[in-house]
Amino acid sequence: MSSRSLHPPAPDAAALRARLDRAAKAAAAAGADALLVAPGSDLRHLLGQAGGSFERLTTLVVPADGTPALVVPKLEAPGYADVPTDDLGVEVLTWVDGDDPYRLVADRLGKPGRIAVSDFTPALHVLSLRAAFGDAEQTLAGPIVRELRMRKDAAEIEALRKAGAAIDRVHARMGEWLRAGRTEAEVGADITAAIVEEGHTHADFVIVGSGPNGASPHHDVSERVIERGDVVVIDIGGPVPEGYNSDSTRTYSIGEPRDADVAETYAVLQRAQQAAVDAVRPGATAESIDKAARDIIDAAGFGEYFIHRTGHGIGLDVHEEPYIIKGNALPLEAGMAFSVEPGIYQPGRWGARIEDIVLVTDSGVEPVNTRPHELVVLDA
Amino acid sequence: MSSRSLHPPAPDAAALRARLDRAAKAAAAAGADALLVAPGSDLRHLLGQAGGSFERLTTLVVPADGTPALVVPKLEAPGYADVPTDDLGVEVLTWVDGDDPYRLVADRLGKPGRIAVSDFTPALHVLSLRAAFGDAEQTLAGPIVRELRMRKDAAEIEALRKAGAAIDRVHARMGEWLRAGRTEAEVGADITAAIVEEGHTHADFVIVGSGPNGASPHHDVSERVIERGDVVVIDIGGPVPEGYNSDSTRTYSIGEPRDADVAETYAVLQRAQQAAVDAVRPGATAESIDKAARDIIDAAGFGEYFIHRTGHGIGLDVHEEPYIIKGNALPLEAGMAFSVEPGIYQPGRWGARIEDIVLVTDSGVEPVNTRPHELVVLDA
Repeated sequence: MSSRSLHPPAPDAAALRARLDRAAKAAAAAGADALLVAPGSDLRHLLGQAGGSFERLTTLVVPADGTPALVVPKLEAPGYADVPTDDLGVEVLTWVDGDDPYRLVADRLGKPGRIAVSDFTPALHVLSLRAAFGDAEQTLAGPIVRELRMRKDAAEIEALRKAGAAIDRVHARMGEWLRAGRTEAEVGADITAAIVEEGHTHADFVIVGSGPNGASPHHDVSERVIERGDVVVIDIGGPVPEGYNSDSTRTYSIGEPRDADVAETYAVLQRAQQAAVDAVRPGATAESIDKAARDIIDAAGFGEYFIHRTGHGIGLDVHEEPYIIKGNALPLEAGMAFSVEPGIYQPGRWGARIEDIVLVTDSGVEPVNTRPHELVVLDA
Repeated sequence: MSSRSLHPPAPDAAALRARLDRAAKAAAAAGADALLVAPGSDLRHLLGQAGGSFERLTTLVVPADGTPALVVPKLEAPGYADVPTDDLGVEVLTWVDGDDPYRLVADRLGKPGRIAVSDFTPALHVLSLRAAFGDAEQTLAGPIVRELRMRKDAAEIEALRKAGAAIDRVHARMGEWLRAGRTEAEVGADITAAIVEEGHTHADFVIVGSGPNGASPHHDVSERVIERGDVVVIDIGGPVPEGYNSDSTRTYSIGEPRDADVAETYAVLQRAQQAAVDAVRPGATAESIDKAARDIIDAAGFGEYFIHRTGHGIGLDVHEEPYIIKGNALPLEAGMAFSVEPGIYQPGRWGARIEDIVLVTDSGVEPVNTRPHELVVLDA
């Protein structure tokens, strides 16, 4: 339990108030009478506190027009003690075991026509809210909330830079831990500790994909012993105390790669990743960034080995809008932040991925991860 | 990252096959055409693997009549490599970015009348599934699945005993770490490490509620410095490698309690907790167990300070069915497992709680936590 997470720096009340006002306006613009914001990142974005989500309902009711209300079990109200609810103009409505919290929310809103719920609200609450609201239409708040969360303000950008620099420091030290004769799990444990040492509250994910495991993008760690000649994908990240996440991948080899095709294939990947980063500017579509990487990989004949989208947005969540994928015609805007992470995976042999988090600036792009992109050849 | 979680012991294929068959029958009995089981504990219960739940849909389709199918992003299929899908008669249907997984599930089931989704399925998937299924009614799978998860089989009971014994060993050592002059956070960090040392994969929650913080049941840890005379609530637990959770609370004092009313109030609490445990037997209702504790606390005049239900079921989740709360008339049956944890909370001064996990046996009750129930007076 890191002490960095005990008193996280919260955005100031004025910033939160502005976000609550924008949330209400965004709900109205989307034709929703209210947002019901579940604990998690959406709540953290609006109140500075993520809260917890268990089987008891906690929700922040943000009417399109009216006073927001935090509906919370009395038991869990102390967890929100640091939220400046008076300054924010947020009413706190507590309930105890035996009350009907869905009724409490429904009574608060009268007869709404359309209610938008956070994307990760559990079905348990989604369906019980639907029953309490009768005829109201239920939609996802994601498309509404993403308008707010996609465009980072100055403090959020600063936090992403801080997170990026912190995970870069971990990659810079990889030679301290990554060598032949150790298992992926042992290396992973050292990386985990370093992620905290370098300023994160904890490690959220540590992928050490060595040899054939590198060809499986969501492999995490195993007892496989790393060998001389292995190519190793290291994809790591976690939140800094402000709540914003890092996420960066570099590919290493333990001495020169054993597979003869690595050098040529990796060069294609590096070109593709750079082209995608270079394509980022306000007005470019999200899918055009994916296309920039994929066209290069396809042209070199490796298209069938690039088996996922080019990237995902990042912020209070590791994966959020905008997704950098074919089919997403969203025009990029300054303040957006996402990963650019193409990969080429040769099943049973090796894999490689290169990932930077980038910010869209007024005129182009600012990567927050700035380590070199070459294959890093470590001493065996 | 604990190596204990790398290759968790999975139940054997025959046990899983039996659970899948029971799930299908339970769906049919509830009038549902299929269950859609989300990653998490419900999936772990049926496949031996919890999976992950991100924004890409993964769901186990369990038809009331027909072959189950695991719908999973191709990217994440390797995470299920240890699941004996052939032996289980489960088909694996992968999809890639750009496909419509909701359509894939809908096409699998034709025109169902009623679909039941896991209680913790994110709204993102709940609403997209609803759109893909048109006229089908959506209900919660909780009431269906709980029939399966509430009645633990022999292997599950053994895992709960193992978890209970492990957390008891941590409570037995509390004097090594809990003393005046240290912060709750420092004590919490030591307890966290001990939870892993004593056999859990990780600590799921560590509550150190000292002095006034003990009156806030969901307080976790803070920078408050523990003082001589403090009463301290320690509520801790985590999963063992089999996936089953421990959860036990004991109340300690640092030297003799400073508040004059502690001894008398604590005696009432101890009597109440024991009466509730003694009331457990097949046929008793869940709410009768809550009443057994609450009546004693009410009669002594402390009823307004017992501000939560008496208990919650436990298994693959820390909180699951059955809930030990007024209004739940469910008759207890052998194999059920839940907490018995009344508390008395004096706001601003001190709090106390006593918690054991108990199993319902054929004739009565078997607590899996067996530490003494007295207030534990430690050296200051």
